[in-house]
Amino acid sequence: MSKPTPISGFPEWLPPQRMIEQYVVERIRSTFELYGFAPLETRAVEPLDQLLRKGETSKEIYVLRRLQEEGPGGDDALGLHFDLTVPFARFVLENAGKLKFPFRRYQIQKVWRGERPQEGRYREFLQADIDIVDRDTLPAHYEAELPLIIGDALGGLPIPPIRIQVNNRKVCEGFYRGLGLTDPEAALRAIDKLDKIGPDKVAALLAETAGASDAQAKACLALAEIRTDDASFADAVRTLGVSDPLLDEGLAELVEVVETAAEHAPGLCVADLRIARGLDYYTGTVYETQMQGYERFGSICSGGRYDNLATAGTDRFPGVGISIGVTRLLGLLFGAGELSVSRSVPTCVLIALPAEERRRDAGRIAEALRRRGIPTEVSPSAAKYGKQIRYAERRGIPYVWFPGGDGTPDSVKDIRSGDQVDATADAWTPAAEDLRPVVN
Amino acid sequence: MSKPTPISGFPEWLPPQRMIEQYVVERIRSTFELYGFAPLETRAVEPLDQLLRKGETSKEIYVLRRLQEEGPGGDDALGLHFDLTVPFARFVLENAGKLKFPFRRYQIQKVWRGERPQEGRYREFLQADIDIVDRDTLPAHYEAELPLIIGDALGGLPIPPIRIQVNNRKVCEGFYRGLGLTDPEAALRAIDKLDKIGPDKVAALLAETAGASDAQAKACLALAEIRTDDASFADAVRTLGVSDPLLDEGLAELVEVVETAAEHAPGLCVADLRIARGLDYYTGTVYETQMQGYERFGSICSGGRYDNLATAGTDRFPGVGISIGVTRLLGLLFGAGELSVSRSVPTCVLIALPAEERRRDAGRIAEALRRRGIPTEVSPSAAKYGKQIRYAERRGIPYVWFPGGDGTPDSVKDIRSGDQVDATADAWTPAAEDLRPVVN
Repeated sequence: MSKPTPISGFPEWLPPQRMIEQYVVERIRSTFELYGFAPLETRAVEPLDQLLRKGETSKEIYVLRRLQEEGPGGDDALGLHFDLTVPFARFVLENAGKLKFPFRRYQIQKVWRGERPQEGRYREFLQADIDIVDRDTLPAHYEAELPLIIGDALGGLPIPPIRIQVNNRKVCEGFYRGLGLTDPEAALRAIDKLDKIGPDKVAALLAETAGASDAQAKACLALAEIRTDDASFADAVRTLGVSDPLLDEGLAELVEVVETAAEHAPGLCVADLRIARGLDYYTGTVYETQMQGYERFGSICSGGRYDNLATAGTDRFPGVGISIGVTRLLGLLFGAGELSVSRSVPTCVLIALPAEERRRDAGRIAEALRRRGIPTEVSPSAAKYGKQIRYAERRGIPYVWFPGGDGTPDSVKDIRSGDQVDATADAWTPAAEDLRPVVN
Repeated sequence: MSKPTPISGFPEWLPPQRMIEQYVVERIRSTFELYGFAPLETRAVEPLDQLLRKGETSKEIYVLRRLQEEGPGGDDALGLHFDLTVPFARFVLENAGKLKFPFRRYQIQKVWRGERPQEGRYREFLQADIDIVDRDTLPAHYEAELPLIIGDALGGLPIPPIRIQVNNRKVCEGFYRGLGLTDPEAALRAIDKLDKIGPDKVAALLAETAGASDAQAKACLALAEIRTDDASFADAVRTLGVSDPLLDEGLAELVEVVETAAEHAPGLCVADLRIARGLDYYTGTVYETQMQGYERFGSICSGGRYDNLATAGTDRFPGVGISIGVTRLLGLLFGAGELSVSRSVPTCVLIALPAEERRRDAGRIAEALRRRGIPTEVSPSAAKYGKQIRYAERRGIPYVWFPGGDGTPDSVKDIRSGDQVDATADAWTPAAEDLRPVVN
């Protein structure tokens, strides 16, 4: 065969980058577990009709066909999931009888979208989601809890600071309704385009698709301009002179989100009333997240409350969730040359080989070190010691172990400093910071 | 929508099972890292022509098509990978200039096959692979190392004992050649069916597809019957009176594998000369693994040496690898009611809520506990304490924390024993065995 080439939109990291990714995922996962979220994985495929419920994204779906199968597949055609929320909602409905509600779960998996690839946007990428669903009703306090978890998960990583922008659909819809607009959904979709097309075109769109007068469009845009990192946004909204019970409910919920976050982690959250999220299924708080210095690439962590996604017959499971775009986050940072790891392998110690006949002796030393949790490899060959040391050097392995024999003890060398000491495999311990690769 | 139903062949675990799966994967992963394997993930898709190189498996491939795409896809059609070896070989060729050889990597990912589902056989399943590749040549000692790693990875888990059956393609091919058979591949494929169709039908197949005489077929079957847990298989082979240089080479390598394993973990490996592995690409040692009590479901961990899989032009990367079928392993054990976990959530402590107005106080206690690594949730509502305790009980959360106030200190109750003690969030520590869910 000829030398293979990459496929656009399907990123693959080299091992050092994958080590960084694992470190990041591990941090996210352990934070989710500290907050009591249980793990879940759903299958990669969903019935096509399930995936198409969300309308707008239909064009991005990858459909599956078995190679030997005839025809394009009928009612039971399967597609790859494009997010983890739709599969989760389906899982909850399917397994409601076996789950305990409120149900807190996290899910860290690849998703696929047939979009045109560009920087920070992929066809295959890793998402890390948390969601809380309950039966029939879901208290609003969970909407205030999620940003704290994201702040903790990402705050402990060597990445630029993040800021979570929050809004509430009830604020927008209540405001639009209070203004006299009859199609708040259309207004929301127009406002969602503000960053992309600017206020003038949004005003035109509001007139065209939501039937807004000039004054109404102006008020919608004024609302979208409000942005505060404390609860004062509520006063700013009230100054616009619109009143509606749904608006009041949304403002109270949003105040709770912003105040809870301010107490937990000052600067983490900002109320930003232009945040709409394109997806139709959100009904309360919505989240987007910007990483400092990478704002132009869009949100790296988004979500919101959805009251009607997991509904079948009389079963109804309102939920709230948020999703970290792990691949987007890392793709941007790798692209900028940020993030590094102290070595390209997990190995802490290389056992040098005085002669090929001594491979089993070397294996016993390695075994003793591994039993004590020290990642160890045996040298690939009994080449000259200089060559064996270079094997370690090129991979960043910090220590080389020299088996003794004939009365000489074993010794271990820190090949960075050149320090060499006598050692026994059941007692020697590396410096704590050398045990595992360190991500910076 | 109506209530969704499962899709045959696409298993989904409930959270307690997923917790067990994570525990198993974590054990496998940390063992792989202890042996110095670096992590890798490849994309889920490969070009179809790449996947079809392996001939026999073509019928099992899932092909992708974007929903809005026209036609069935041409030369650049993509399919889901059906194992992790073919993608890894492709990755090595594509990135050879950026990798350091010998290259040791592990890869734990889902794979997909359009096979008819049955017990222990799925359409989507998780594999955990290790491989070592080198440029141009690969020393045989790696073939002896891999079984030790699998023994360590699975040996530490609460699952039935495993036994790795090893053979060497050179033994079979050398023997067949020494016998005078001109198509050793065909003979190998016939022998590979021994477990399924029995010796009589295999003899007929040997005659039909490999042109074997009765005596030759009988010798092939005699070879396949040899099975020893020490190096004595080599004598048993020599007793059959066939000689060939490739046979001698294979026997020496197989002796090394069996003896190395016997020293490291007695009983782990057995030389079993009927093991052939259907895939054409193996050229040296081959592995299969049986779990005690589950032998009839086939191998849970397989692999072998491949000299020609990663080859492009003059670049040649011989390798050896082995793959744990995590989903098959767990599916069988779950099906038999084996394996359990001590609770259904990671949560160790539930903070009870005296009143909804005290949610932020409760949040501060939770935060202090989490900062010390204790997984903590705040109660969903300020219901009567009895109801809040039942929330913990139903999930197996061992401790409930009662915030004090007005001069009373906080206290924490072990709801299994009923023991309750005064506590402060920055000092109290749960029993070590209660911190995380325990898998048995």
